[in-house]
Amino acid sequence: MSTYWARRAWLPDGVAEHVRIEISHAVITAVSRDEKPSGTALSGTIVPGFANTHSHAFHRALRGRTHDDRGSFWTWRERMYAVAGRLQPDSYYRLARAVYAEMVLAGYTSVAEFHYLHHPARGRRYADPNEFSCALVAAAADAGIRLTLLDTCYVAGGFGKPTEGVQGRFDDGDAEAWAQRFESFRPAGELARVGVAVHSVRAVPAEQLPVVVRTASGRPLHVHLSEQLEENEECLAYYGRTPTELLHEADALTPDTVAVHATHLTGTDIAALTGSWASFCPSTEADLGDGIGPARGLADAGVRLCLGSDGQSVVDPWFEARALELHERLASGQRGRFDAAEIMAAAAAHGASGWPGLGSIAVGQGADLVHVNPDSVRTAGADGPGILFAATAADVTDVMVAGRWRVRDGVHTGVPEVARELNTEIGALWQ
Amino acid sequence: MSTYWARRAWLPDGVAEHVRIEISHAVITAVSRDEKPSGTALSGTIVPGFANTHSHAFHRALRGRTHDDRGSFWTWRERMYAVAGRLQPDSYYRLARAVYAEMVLAGYTSVAEFHYLHHPARGRRYADPNEFSCALVAAAADAGIRLTLLDTCYVAGGFGKPTEGVQGRFDDGDAEAWAQRFESFRPAGELARVGVAVHSVRAVPAEQLPVVVRTASGRPLHVHLSEQLEENEECLAYYGRTPTELLHEADALTPDTVAVHATHLTGTDIAALTGSWASFCPSTEADLGDGIGPARGLADAGVRLCLGSDGQSVVDPWFEARALELHERLASGQRGRFDAAEIMAAAAAHGASGWPGLGSIAVGQGADLVHVNPDSVRTAGADGPGILFAATAADVTDVMVAGRWRVRDGVHTGVPEVARELNTEIGALWQ
Repeated sequence: MSTYWARRAWLPDGVAEHVRIEISHAVITAVSRDEKPSGTALSGTIVPGFANTHSHAFHRALRGRTHDDRGSFWTWRERMYAVAGRLQPDSYYRLARAVYAEMVLAGYTSVAEFHYLHHPARGRRYADPNEFSCALVAAAADAGIRLTLLDTCYVAGGFGKPTEGVQGRFDDGDAEAWAQRFESFRPAGELARVGVAVHSVRAVPAEQLPVVVRTASGRPLHVHLSEQLEENEECLAYYGRTPTELLHEADALTPDTVAVHATHLTGTDIAALTGSWASFCPSTEADLGDGIGPARGLADAGVRLCLGSDGQSVVDPWFEARALELHERLASGQRGRFDAAEIMAAAAAHGASGWPGLGSIAVGQGADLVHVNPDSVRTAGADGPGILFAATAADVTDVMVAGRWRVRDGVHTGVPEVARELNTEIGALWQ
Repeated sequence: MSTYWARRAWLPDGVAEHVRIEISHAVITAVSRDEKPSGTALSGTIVPGFANTHSHAFHRALRGRTHDDRGSFWTWRERMYAVAGRLQPDSYYRLARAVYAEMVLAGYTSVAEFHYLHHPARGRRYADPNEFSCALVAAAADAGIRLTLLDTCYVAGGFGKPTEGVQGRFDDGDAEAWAQRFESFRPAGELARVGVAVHSVRAVPAEQLPVVVRTASGRPLHVHLSEQLEENEECLAYYGRTPTELLHEADALTPDTVAVHATHLTGTDIAALTGSWASFCPSTEADLGDGIGPARGLADAGVRLCLGSDGQSVVDPWFEARALELHERLASGQRGRFDAAEIMAAAAAHGASGWPGLGSIAVGQGADLVHVNPDSVRTAGADGPGILFAATAADVTDVMVAGRWRVRDGVHTGVPEVARELNTEIGALWQ
């Protein structure tokens, strides 16, 4: 058993002072407030570890590289495919290890990797057809982050269109072949789990959706949903229904389903998502010009919210948490769309990635903790839950995942030179 | 003369490698590229010092303190007035010194302070009626930032309404009395200048606007403009014209005029602003739910753009610079609304605050430089101008203002414990 004492801690009923936390076997076994220091003293504020519920690790290679001249959506897409075309399991292992380490440094303790880069080329297979999945599991283990590998079905290049070009690397042929490969892969280790994903209704024909739904079988099922208006228009033209309606008819909207983005929805769509999750990725939704989704409307309809770093233009859970509220304000003209507890619930929603029992500092919860400096130039003066509106990734000093410190004094304990590794791997990809 | 060599520098025609910069008497006297190291070597990327063209320094005390429960606009306003009610010249000096030091640490080298807290109470005057102005000038001098003190005329509490409550501290009685006080104040020192401001068309009756315009007399004239729809509606109801039309008729829209926010404008308004400036404050416009102003439309109409940290919920010029583009993307659904050069021009637009001859790394320009670490976890992998889409305030290592290093290795050379001072001063205000 380990004992920690923190000057302040974000507990389920608010930010408390002088909090003692006992941890045994990676689980929080006692929490009490107004205590004298004992055990390891932490001079700052402890908050629950953050959940990154939507990640494409390799997109990190695009940060600051898609805005030349003016950088349209097509600049971004062309470069994303260029990187997807070059990665191999060994280079992706190294890049992902650094990206996941960057995430842990920022305070993320779990990541749902929406993984669609499966094969060496169209119709070809690695000796182990899950070699990329293995690389990502190894990268997460080395970075010390909980991983939900979402094996993504991607078998069409658009409505009624085959995959083309680099998309051949994503394509298992059909959902049955995808399911077969997925069933043959189960990662070892306490910190890795699997789930499934439908890339989008563009990439999986309606008649193949039931295979993915059946394969999910109680595991997380994530899907990119209505990120851009074009998807909606094409889906309506092809199927005569919205993407959400299509998924609803395929029984794909369950309590384990996470609709990623959920930006452009009708009232009927929102109602159909009740009981499922919506993963907002504010930094990416701004970067790609997706628009501002109806976060408050979804929450009011009983859709649980969670957050993701998606395209990695920003890896900062504090930024995403604030932006959930701030984008709502920009769209609605009103402040106070979410209270601090709602924002933290979304930011620490590990359940969306298949990790129930995480996300708050309470007895019985997994021991994922983030220690943030309340005395940086950014956080100084903020009060209680106000830390959520002041801190950035740069203010995180220590991070514990499953009872183990993976970051101490701002340094990753397993990947000591994260920035150098990012530079090396990203530089090599653009050579 | 001092010689610097930087691995990379943001020059007027793009990011160059191995750049030698010579500086003499606070002015850049030579710039050349592809040079061998000589003089002081800087291993990262040099960019021009950033211009903070809209600041209310004391609002820093509100960061992370206006979101309890849900924190409406009225929560924010009530607390802002509470702080405005408590500040005295000595406490404001100490708070502002720390806030300006935070700005320099982030890379700002000039600040336009939109200053409206003038008096001890309604109808009362300090022994020196410009004692608050003196305090702010001293704070900026100690923090080493260029200051344009915008003495703000605030003589009404709304359309046809007298000031009330704390607003009595802002109120000179009428514009003539305001002008008289303003004319009696001229700060000493190379780094302080003055300008004027109309708080808003709510706070200065139309018939008094000509006094402010006349008093400006070629100096910067800033004005909060159409930040919220309510202002437009009330102005139309009271005067039968938009705030912009009102200012236009008063000849208040000159090349020295900076319209702050400029969020809710008609096509006619935009045309009337041609030749003037618009100061966007994206972090504040999100925080207060103002909405997204027509930045691209203004730029296309020949309005020069600049940026400000305004309410200090964020003090990070990189954030504001990116958000200029990212908010446009959210509103328009398109990427690439501004190119990197346009964004940097807005971020370094010292001219809007009455500092021409600053804002680029070129011969004859003032020696304001920011040295940023291109090898942090945030900036690693970004290429050339991509640094603008990757760096944060936390990645700034060194800042030179007018030829003098004010930040070295992330530490302010004049105010070594900025965070502690912020904590102390803000804590005292909320006691």
